[in-house]
Order: sequence, then structure tokens, then C-alpha cells
Amino acid sequence: MLNEFIKKELRKIVGADNVQDSNASLLAYSYDATPGFQSMPDLIISPRNTVEISQIVKICNEHEIPIVPRGSGTNLSAGTTPLHGGIVLLMKHLDKIIEIDEENLTVRAQPGVITVDLIQAVEEKGLFYPPDPSSMKISQIGGNINENSGGLRGLKYGVTRDYVIGLEIVLPNGDIISTGGKLAKDVAGYDLTRLIVGSEGTLGIVTEATLKLIPKPETKKTMLALFQNLDAAAKSVSAIIANRIIPATLEFLDQPTLQAVEDFAQVGLPTTVKAVLLIEQDGTESIVDQDMKKIAHICREYEAIEVSIAKTKEEAEALTTARRSALSALARLRPTTILEDATVPRSQIANMVKAIEKIAKKHDIRICTFGHAGDGNLHPTCLTDIREKSEMERVEKAFEEIFQKAIELGGTITGEHGVGAMKLPYLHLKVGNAGIEIMRKLKHAFDPNNIMNPGKVLAKADRKRVMIHR
Amino acid sequence: MLNEFIKKELRKIVGADNVQDSNASLLAYSYDATPGFQSMPDLIISPRNTVEISQIVKICNEHEIPIVPRGSGTNLSAGTTPLHGGIVLLMKHLDKIIEIDEENLTVRAQPGVITVDLIQAVEEKGLFYPPDPSSMKISQIGGNINENSGGLRGLKYGVTRDYVIGLEIVLPNGDIISTGGKLAKDVAGYDLTRLIVGSEGTLGIVTEATLKLIPKPETKKTMLALFQNLDAAAKSVSAIIANRIIPATLEFLDQPTLQAVEDFAQVGLPTTVKAVLLIEQDGTESIVDQDMKKIAHICREYEAIEVSIAKTKEEAEALTTARRSALSALARLRPTTILEDATVPRSQIANMVKAIEKIAKKHDIRICTFGHAGDGNLHPTCLTDIREKSEMERVEKAFEEIFQKAIELGGTITGEHGVGAMKLPYLHLKVGNAGIEIMRKLKHAFDPNNIMNPGKVLAKADRKRVMIHR
Repeated sequence: MLNEFIKKELRKIVGADNVQDSNASLLAYSYDATPGFQSMPDLIISPRNTVEISQIVKICNEHEIPIVPRGSGTNLSAGTTPLHGGIVLLMKHLDKIIEIDEENLTVRAQPGVITVDLIQAVEEKGLFYPPDPSSMKISQIGGNINENSGGLRGLKYGVTRDYVIGLEIVLPNGDIISTGGKLAKDVAGYDLTRLIVGSEGTLGIVTEATLKLIPKPETKKTMLALFQNLDAAAKSVSAIIANRIIPATLEFLDQPTLQAVEDFAQVGLPTTVKAVLLIEQDGTESIVDQDMKKIAHICREYEAIEVSIAKTKEEAEALTTARRSALSALARLRPTTILEDATVPRSQIANMVKAIEKIAKKHDIRICTFGHAGDGNLHPTCLTDIREKSEMERVEKAFEEIFQKAIELGGTITGEHGVGAMKLPYLHLKVGNAGIEIMRKLKHAFDPNNIMNPGKVLAKADRKRVMIHR
Repeated sequence: MLNEFIKKELRKIVGADNVQDSNASLLAYSYDATPGFQSMPDLIISPRNTVEISQIVKICNEHEIPIVPRGSGTNLSAGTTPLHGGIVLLMKHLDKIIEIDEENLTVRAQPGVITVDLIQAVEEKGLFYPPDPSSMKISQIGGNINENSGGLRGLKYGVTRDYVIGLEIVLPNGDIISTGGKLAKDVAGYDLTRLIVGSEGTLGIVTEATLKLIPKPETKKTMLALFQNLDAAAKSVSAIIANRIIPATLEFLDQPTLQAVEDFAQVGLPTTVKAVLLIEQDGTESIVDQDMKKIAHICREYEAIEVSIAKTKEEAEALTTARRSALSALARLRPTTILEDATVPRSQIANMVKAIEKIAKKHDIRICTFGHAGDGNLHPTCLTDIREKSEMERVEKAFEEIFQKAIELGGTITGEHGVGAMKLPYLHLKVGNAGIEIMRKLKHAFDPNNIMNPGKVLAKADRKRVMIHR
């Protein structure tokens, strides 16, 4: 494993300043944003370029040392917890936007660029990079790619995968490959670009990305629709889409979430209604006005008790920022916050919300629900305390039932957070044993020594599902 | 291999009526739309459902019999030529549109559905399935998925990959797996859905697909811009996009193509100008009008000698239909038509068109060029005669230089036709030896006995590039 000799070799590659192994450092990278998962790495390395990463990977492959590539660690599936020790690889030196190409509408960036910095840099040129995970103010593009991050604009614009058109990747054997390019179309061989997106750092290390951009929408409007009935709110979501309107954002917040967010952000959110839809449309002014009118009409038809459009850009911004702060807001209420992302066909949103309420009640736990309703992507969030053993057992059972219900409704166990270590016990529910089998073969083809982020997506040791040890 | 005993087993599975082995049948499926490739299969089978396909695959896997899944055989990369014999699998019984879901905006279809039938069926409900390969009147959805087909609307709406959100797949070991679903988001494990799309039938057999739909655009307008200067036409393409307008269609035709298409379709295309751009925009009426005005202005700025908008729907339809007939039109001129799809960043279109002209001249061959200019996806089309050995050698050399030039300009050897057998000798130019190596491992992980469409994407026998034997 990672002996002093190897540490010396690694220091030679990146320079002593870029290797940390103090207890404080190791502790800082022993966990990510996911509660209940912690494991000490052996070394923290910050390489300065792709060639250094290739050299590090070759050494790790030879000595079977685990490598966990890590952005800002904001993932919610324990995707960057170094479960089997080894090296945590930081991207702090690979933080450059290399080129914004206004003719081809692309941006080339290193993995360590902060998501919001990239978004702002392209918007300054009238261009638009839509994927906007709630963590975008601290998350890194490389992490977004590894997790195939979604966001509030996913309904209309898709997720990270839909914008990655080229990658530079260091494979687990140290080979450096380039995929795609500034190309609208490329079918030269298997689609490694999209295979790597969302592979959670288990197939290789992304060292550069070419991302597709689109023209920035001319204008944007933001609406709140209030409901005294969860079912009515959920049905409005389906009705909007069925009426052939695709809003840029279509978010759902239940009453407990509203209360927590308002306490936290104080933007004047209603706290007495049962549910709120936060709806945004962007595009040219005439389209936005027309769509907003139609959406308001549909919401009222489905018994919205109030529909209001933000009057200023600042007011609109405050609303979406408040929505993005839901996790932080809820996290203040109890010691442990478990935010899940069971996802269903959007026509099943109402059924799923009701099922979550019922399951929470049955197991006597507290779950607040909000999320990307237009995508069918809900975030049932459990407020609990990891030190309370019997409560945690009930939480486990409740989430297992929630995932099973999502599958029963034609959904999936994870819409945007990834499997990581957190969802390992449930993956077979979605993909079946034959699915896990072929994924395992695929992983082995890329990484026969299982050095790349071991214990994520697929369990390390055997083929059976494993229980999480919290 | 395929002896009488196995044939009997296969007949038992699908019924005697669904097995053909007459010489006439074998001959009919010995080639596809790609000139210069022909090889006799041993048997033609038309299974009636997924379970039968799984049973067939298990037998083939046990006895190492090649299987070539085939739609309508319209591909241009010899993707469905049974190079190593074995079974050609037809989808004629799997030809149902299973469900159009207006709430979730999805369609579920079997692979044998004709593309245009699916497009029309969803349009009747006010929905839109954008991928529209030129062969759409005869191509099948399964073939489109295997090839990740593009089309005229790719610039604005993307390609087949962007609309496939769920698959049922029979793996090479006979396992049946389901991926994705009616889900806007799903990150449960590796993205097998997008890996299978464009894998040319080499990783498994698609037996059902869930496709994403979008609302049908309200209206559409079609414009022709005429140029006496190739460079000006190409620069207009870049300028339109750089001005933040993404037309639905942005096609380029050079003079020889125009002449051939007009002789064939007789729709009144100009035949004396050097180049034409065929431009479509769709959306709401106000946007379409506004964009068309801007586009016309830009074309004129770049020295278009005439810009005209189709006055009626019929006139517009005639123009795009004429464009779709380019291959058929050109194919009348000489015995052999080789249509390639070298693709570059759109800013390099002008350079690529000039390079193609120069290369054709150098090797004294006739190349007409047209294609999806907005995507940077050109179709240099060589009019030649496969019986003329010395000319064919020059054609080979010219295409090799064209592919090399495309790579040099940041492009790829194939934008939408796939590697098949046709582009095998050039794949390393795009993905490098390390890229071929990892693709080979991936293929082996899925199909260790190499039964699925062997000799496509990757050469069968060794790791080196192989020359095509015509």
C-alpha cells in the first residue's frame, strides 16, 4: 500500500508543497457533504497538470492504491468519501477557463473551475451554460461531470451530460485520452464522453472538458403559485407540461420546507400554505409573457389560491436563491439531514409525494419534501439525528420504502445525486442483477485493479448488495 | 458454426416462416447502402419478440455465431454488412409504437418502427421527435439508435442520442436489461443508455426504446441564400451562430450537388451559383420572423447574391425534400457513390470545403459537397466507379487525406454515419491507440465471444488498423 517510498515518489512528481498528510488534512478530506460516511485517506495530493495526474495514476495502479478524485465534496451520495483509504486527488491547480469560443459556442475548462464562475464568465459574453446544481457557488465543473449534476434549469435545458461534448481523461492505467471536441456531432467509436459523465470518478479522471454553450435567453420571469392541497400542486405540474409548455424551472416546496427556508432566508415566502410551485420561464419577452399567462391560468384551474409574478429581477433572484438554500435551511433544524433524490415520471409526482408522507408517518420520522417537480425529481429530506440508533433504523427502512415506491411508479433511486456509497444497497432495484453484472464487467474493463474511487457505484468485494455501515 | 442442428433449434424458436436461407434471401441481405462491401450471411431470422431474441442470442453465444441486427440497411458505413457471415436479425415483427404518453412527453416504440411513421404519429398529437436522417422514410428507429443518426434538424435539436431516455436491450449473453425510463433524470449506475446509442449493434440488441418528445414548434420558415463564393457561404454559417441565432436547419450545397439535385427533383433550385444555404427556423411566429430577418441580413452582409423565403408550406417542403434526395440524385451520375461525413468545428467549415476541393483536384476525382453546415458536418460525396481499380485507389487516398484534414482542423472522421467497417482504417486518427485499446476492452467486457456484429467499430482480429478489402 502507501508506504514511505511511494510517498517520496509522489512528492517528486508534484512537489512537496502539493502533498499533505497531516492528521488535520486527512481528517478534512475524510468526509464529504453526505452524513454518516467517514473514512480516513492516506494522502492528499494536488497535481499541477494532466501529465502529473497520469504519473500518479500509474504508481497507484502498480501498487493498487485507491484514488478518489474530489472537487468541492458537495455531493450527497458519499461519492468522494475515501472509503478504502488511499489518495484524495484535489483539482485546486487545475482551475482555469482555457477558452470561450464564441464562434463554435463552446467553453474549454479545467475540472477545478467553480461552476458559478464558469456560468458568469460565459454570460458576460451573452452565452449560457444551463446546468446549475444548488451547490453551484462552491461545486466544481469536474465534480459536476463526475456526478452528471442536474439543477433548477434541468427541465428545459437538461443536465450536465447534455453539455459535455469533449473530455480529456486519464484512464486507470495512466493512459491519457481525448474524446469528442468542439463538435456538434461525433460518432467515432463508443461514446466514452457520456460514459465518463456520471461515472462518479470510478472509470478515470477528467482533466479537461469542452462544454457546449447556447445563446443566453433574452429575459426571464419568476412566479410563485400557492396551494392548500399537495395533490393540486402536483397535478398543476403535469398539466403545465401536458399543455406543451416547458418552463425553465418548475420547483416544488412543501410547507415544512417553506417554513425552514423562510426562517433561514427571510425573503417573504408564504409559510402557511401546503405547497408552493416556483416557476421560471426564459426566452424572448413575448414568449415569456405568453407562457407565464398560460401557466398562471393552469395553476388557478388546479386550485392555486394565489399566483404572483416577481416584480423585479432582485425579487426573482431572492426567490431562486432561497430555493437553492433549502438544504442549508433544513440542516439547521436537527443534527443530521439526509437529502435523497428519488425520481419518478412527472405524471407520478402526486402519487410519490403522498407516498412519502405516508411512509414518514408510518415510521414516525420527519421528512420535508421539495425538488425539481418538472423533472419528477423530488428531494425527500429527512431531519434526524445520527446518534439516535433506533430512529436511524426507522430512517433506513423509510428510505428503502421510498426507493421501492419510486421504482414501482416507473422511477429511479437517484435522479441527480449518483449512487456513490449511499445508494449501493438499492442499485439492484433499478438496474436488476443483470444490469449490475454488466456494469461490473464494464468497470473491470476500465479498472481491473479497482483503484478508481473503489466502493462507489458498485460494491468493492462481492456482487451482493451490502448494507451501509453508518 | 451454423450447422443444420442449430438451424433447427432456431426454427423452433421463431417458427419456420421466420427463417430464410434461400440464396436469393441471403444475397438480399449481403450488403447495405454502402458501396463496396458485400458478404453472404448464413441465415436471416425475423424474431417476434424480445424473449425470442434472447433465446437466439444465447444459442449464438454458445456456438460463436455472428449476429448482425439490421433495420432497413440504409447506413453508409457498411454497418449492417454481415462481414463474417452468421445471422442477420430483422425487426419486421417488432414494428409497433407501444405508447405515446402526452403527460410525460415520451413515446415507447419497438425498433422496427419506420422513423417517419413515428415522427408523424407524435406530430398528430402536437408533439415533436426531431431526429430526421435523410433516410427517414425507410430507416427504422432501431437502426437510428444503433447509428446515433443525425439529420437536418440536428443543429438546433441534437441527434438521436439526445432523445433516447430508456432502452430494453438483449446483451450478448442473452440477458435482457432495461435502462432509464420515462425519466428526465436518472443516474443509477453507468449510463448504459447512451453507451448503447451509436454502438452500431456491437454491444447488444435494442428491443424497445423510450424516446423523449418536445412540443411541436408552432410554425416554420424556409430560406434559400445563394452565393457566388464558397468561402462567403461558409462564413455566413459561422456568422449566423456567432450572432446567437440557432436555426433549426442550416444546410450547405455546392454547385455540382445543386445541379444533380435539380435535375432529379426539379423544384427550381438555382444551378449556376457556387453554393446555396438552405436555412430553416421554427418556433413561434414572431421569433421565426425576427430570426429570418436577421439571418437574411447576415447572409447579405457576407455577399449572398440572393436571399428568398419560401412562400408556401409546399414550396418549403419541396426544398427540404430535394435536399434529402441529394444522395439519390448524385447516385444517378456515376455507378458508385461514396458519401462521407467528415465533421469539423463549424468555424472551420470554410477551410474544410476548400481542402476537399483541393484534395479532389490533386487526386483527379469528382467530389460534390453538401451537408449539415451548421453542425460542421459535411458530406463530401465521391462519384466514381468501383470497377475502375486505379480510380478507386485515388479515391481511397483522397478520403484518407480528407479525414486527416478534418482531424487537423479539430474534427472527426464521422459525424453521423458511424465507423462500421468503412471507417475502421481511420478510427485511430480520431481516438488514438489508447482510445482504441479502451474501446476494445469495453467491447470484450460486453461481448467476449465477439458475436455481436463482428468487424464493426473495431477490427475483428488484431489491434492494428486494417485496410478495407473492397
